[in-house]
Amino acid sequence: MPCSITRPLVIFGDRWTLLILKYSFSGIRRFNAFQSTLGISRSRLQDRLDRLIEHGILVKQKAAGGAHEEYRLTPKGHDIYPILLAIRDWGDIYMAPEGPPVEYRHRDCTGEAHVKLECDVCGTELTAREVMPLPGPGLAVSEAAAGARSSVR
Amino acid sequence: MPCSITRPLVIFGDRWTLLILKYSFSGIRRFNAFQSTLGISRSRLQDRLDRLIEHGILVKQKAAGGAHEEYRLTPKGHDIYPILLAIRDWGDIYMAPEGPPVEYRHRDCTGEAHVKLECDVCGTELTAREVMPLPGPGLAVSEAAAGARSSVR
Repeated sequence: MPCSITRPLVIFGDRWTLLILKYSFSGIRRFNAFQSTLGISRSRLQDRLDRLIEHGILVKQKAAGGAHEEYRLTPKGHDIYPILLAIRDWGDIYMAPEGPPVEYRHRDCTGEAHVKLECDVCGTELTAREVMPLPGPGLAVSEAAAGARSSVR
Repeated sequence: MPCSITRPLVIFGDRWTLLILKYSFSGIRRFNAFQSTLGISRSRLQDRLDRLIEHGILVKQKAAGGAHEEYRLTPKGHDIYPILLAIRDWGDIYMAPEGPPVEYRHRDCTGEAHVKLECDVCGTELTAREVMPLPGPGLAVSEAAAGARSSVR
């Protein structure tokens, strides 16, 4: 069954990839900087960077001065930020007994930034128990396509 | 440097683990049901389930009838839901060209549930560019502990 949680896990179901993304948001852009910060082998780092480029999440380009190559987040990559901050919110609750090591604050008003699962209509903050999954418009399309493929066999 | 994104990745930086959690939220509880749904080897599944139990995210207990064992989400496990729905929101935008395969709706009002990164003070929905990471209260504690450990060496 198609699912928009399962599909991105082909990319995000990997610790190194999520760490590369985390450091991309911290401003790291050069291969060597990723390598020394992460303590990852060069081949493994190259593999992960290549996959992120292939998925349009990072782009490799000449730095402003033109002296070296940089890996930068695309807009598609920037949209991953709420995933990382959702992990952070959970980590602050359950894996930071000494208190949050880092606070993420709104630049304008310095309020803290947190991820909330909300109802678009009534604005209520929701837990898993208050949410029901229902077939979406993409399901019938996917199933029709799967049916067409199986009838070709 | 301590970080509440890095720490949970020891658990969540793994595709199988995130898939097990996804199916836990769909109501799957038995070992054999996880195995047949995921198409994962028994030893790999056992390894991931054991780690989730060790981290207090799943609990293994007798089912109501007492006939078999079940793996159920703890409250700590339930709090992972926004992480999965943040992945889903991204997947719906970038990996569902045919439209969302599944809609997640608020049981009460049937509005759609979405993850939002918001400022706690002014309520603005934020992007990565509008957020600044700053040292939090846990950082000094962690660094003092690291200093104490290194002085013992």
